[in-house]
This record gives sequence, C-alpha cells and structure tokens, in this order.
Amino acid sequence: MDYFSAPIANLIEEFEKLPGIGHKTASRLAFYILNQPMEKASDFAKALIEAKEKTKFCSVCGNLTEHEVCPICASEKRDKSTICVVSDFKDLFAMEKTHEFNGVYHILQGVISPINGIGPDDIKIKELISRLNGNVSEVILATNLNVEGEATAMYISKLIKPMGIKVTRIAHGIPVGGDLEYTDEVTLTMAMEARREI
Amino acid sequence: MDYFSAPIANLIEEFEKLPGIGHKTASRLAFYILNQPMEKASDFAKALIEAKEKTKFCSVCGNLTEHEVCPICASEKRDKSTICVVSDFKDLFAMEKTHEFNGVYHILQGVISPINGIGPDDIKIKELISRLNGNVSEVILATNLNVEGEATAMYISKLIKPMGIKVTRIAHGIPVGGDLEYTDEVTLTMAMEARREI
Repeated sequence: MDYFSAPIANLIEEFEKLPGIGHKTASRLAFYILNQPMEKASDFAKALIEAKEKTKFCSVCGNLTEHEVCPICASEKRDKSTICVVSDFKDLFAMEKTHEFNGVYHILQGVISPINGIGPDDIKIKELISRLNGNVSEVILATNLNVEGEATAMYISKLIKPMGIKVTRIAHGIPVGGDLEYTDEVTLTMAMEARREI
Repeated sequence: MDYFSAPIANLIEEFEKLPGIGHKTASRLAFYILNQPMEKASDFAKALIEAKEKTKFCSVCGNLTEHEVCPICASEKRDKSTICVVSDFKDLFAMEKTHEFNGVYHILQGVISPINGIGPDDIKIKELISRLNGNVSEVILATNLNVEGEATAMYISKLIKPMGIKVTRIAHGIPVGGDLEYTDEVTLTMAMEARREI
C-alpha cells in the first residue's frame, strides 16, 4: 500500500511481530502511538531497551532480576529446602500469585522437546542438579501438564530420585469450576486415579 | 508484587497504556520481548521513535506522511476537484482500501464534540474551507455515522453549501451481509428513507 510511509509500515510490522497481534491490531496500536506526543513514544522505547538491558537471569534459579541473585533466592524468609521446577519465568509468576508456595524456584528455560531439537542439555537441568546439595529435601516438578512438560518431569525425576530426594509432581485433575461433562478423558482418568479419601 | 523488577514492571505498564491491551496481555508481550535478543528490542524501540520523528502531517490534507505533501495530494492521477472529508487518518486508510475513490482527502483530526470540549475551531475545518478554491466541485462528508460525526457533517455542510459547492454525505443503510432482524431502528429507518428505485 503506497499510501503508508515507510516508518509507519515499519512500526506496524514491529507490532505484528508480537505474539497474538495481527495486522489490524498492529495498525491500531501504531496509529495510537502516532497520535501520542513524542515523549510517550520515547518513554515506550526507553522502557523496551531498559527492560532488556537491566534484566538478567538470577545466577541461582534463572529468574529474571535486576541483581545477581533474584529477590526470591535472596530472601531469608523463603524455604531453600524445597525447589519448585518450572519451565518458564511466566510460570514462576503464576505460582507466586497463589501465595501458597514458600520455597524457591528453578527455571528450566524450556522443556525437552525432541521435535524442536531441544534435548536435556539445552535446558537448565545440569544447573538444577548442581543445586541439590544436602539441604534440599523436596523437588516439586511443576512443568506444564502436556506431553513435553510430562517428558521433562519424567526425565528430571529419574535423575533426582536416586539421590534420595523426594520428587513430587503437581496434581492432574479437574480445575475448580470445571465441568465433568466437558473434561477430556485423559484429565478425567487422571482425576480418578488421583482420587483421595475424604 | 515485589518479585517483578522495576524495568519489567515499567515495560508491562507501557504496554498496558496501549488501547485494548490489559494487564495480562501486557505481561505476555513484555515477557515476549524479554525472551527476544537485545537486537529485536532495539529494532522495536527504533521503529517507535522513527515513526514519530519522520512522520508529519501533509500540509494540504493532514494525512500522515514523510514528506511535506502526502503521496495522495502529490499524485497527478488523483482528482483534486473532489475532497473526501474524514475525521481521522485511519478512516482515510479504510477508504483507500476500497480502491473506489480517486479524489483527495481532508483529515479533520477530530470531530465536533461539545461534551469533550471540542469545538469547530479545534479541528481542521478552517483548513478545509481555505482549500475550497474554484477548482473543487464536490465535498464528500465521510465522518462517522454517530452523533458527533453527524453534527460535524451538518456543521461543515452549512458552511460550504452557500459557496455553491456540491456537498454529499456517505450513505446510511444496512451493511452488506446485514440482517434486517438485527438492524437497529435508526439504521432501518434511514435505509427506508434512502431507498432507491431498481
């Protein structure tokens, strides 16, 4: 479309690269920026750069942080003997929102996925193993409940169990508010298998 | 949430300022950026700044352009005797997509809206009037079909009609694919009034 000047087309393209943003939304967002004062656009640009520049991975757990060690690993209130293993820092934030877990985390930065060429050495499994000194009593595997997450959990549990550390997996089952009628068979089977006496 | 470092929280906040982007989507987009190499983030930041810096308003019609005069106003193929008046440059792009209109545009950069304190002098009506030299034979009012768009169209038509220039309004009616059953009464009334012999 020759009526779009190059810088506008370029900005739309950049917005389109974001996940879940199509051409229409990208145009809408770009036009919004164009309607804002220069100051707002430069604030946005600065935030993009700063978030990338100032954020690094925690040297202990792999969480995103401004410091060498993230606030969770640095906190004296957190129980260092329980490590919750997640595949992504987004999962850490989801966990933290529950305010239920008081241990520490380990972020794998991925899952084992042969189809995508990701093997055990491509994610932070070695780093997890090296954290398992005598003080760790439980490793909770909280990777996602899909094929790759399951495979990753299986792989890690086989590595850790022989070390005499308790390995647990977050529960499969019917979500709160879930409807039996619309629950897939695999979930339902697992919910039945994991039934508990009340 | 103290586990979000300031630069991340800041980036999420910037994304949240965009229209139609809530906190969840903003977090998702921010995390996406954090997972990208630095280069991608700086490309995005650069696109934001450049789009603002290099884009200015066409001195004739108010369209966004890199040059003093936009490609539409500069084109010799466009019919300068017909001016289509729209409220926003997004509407210009919508019009251009139809490939139906071969005239030129005038962008009001807003509509008359007393409730928001926007009067006729706050939008580019004077600039439109000053364009109406002897060569313009028709002004098409293509502001939106809502209260403010209608009021703006009325106001402009009252100014221009005495100048002996043909003033037209885009048609109200049932959209293509529209269902009579679900069409609001005002639209239906207007569609009836504007009926044509076939």
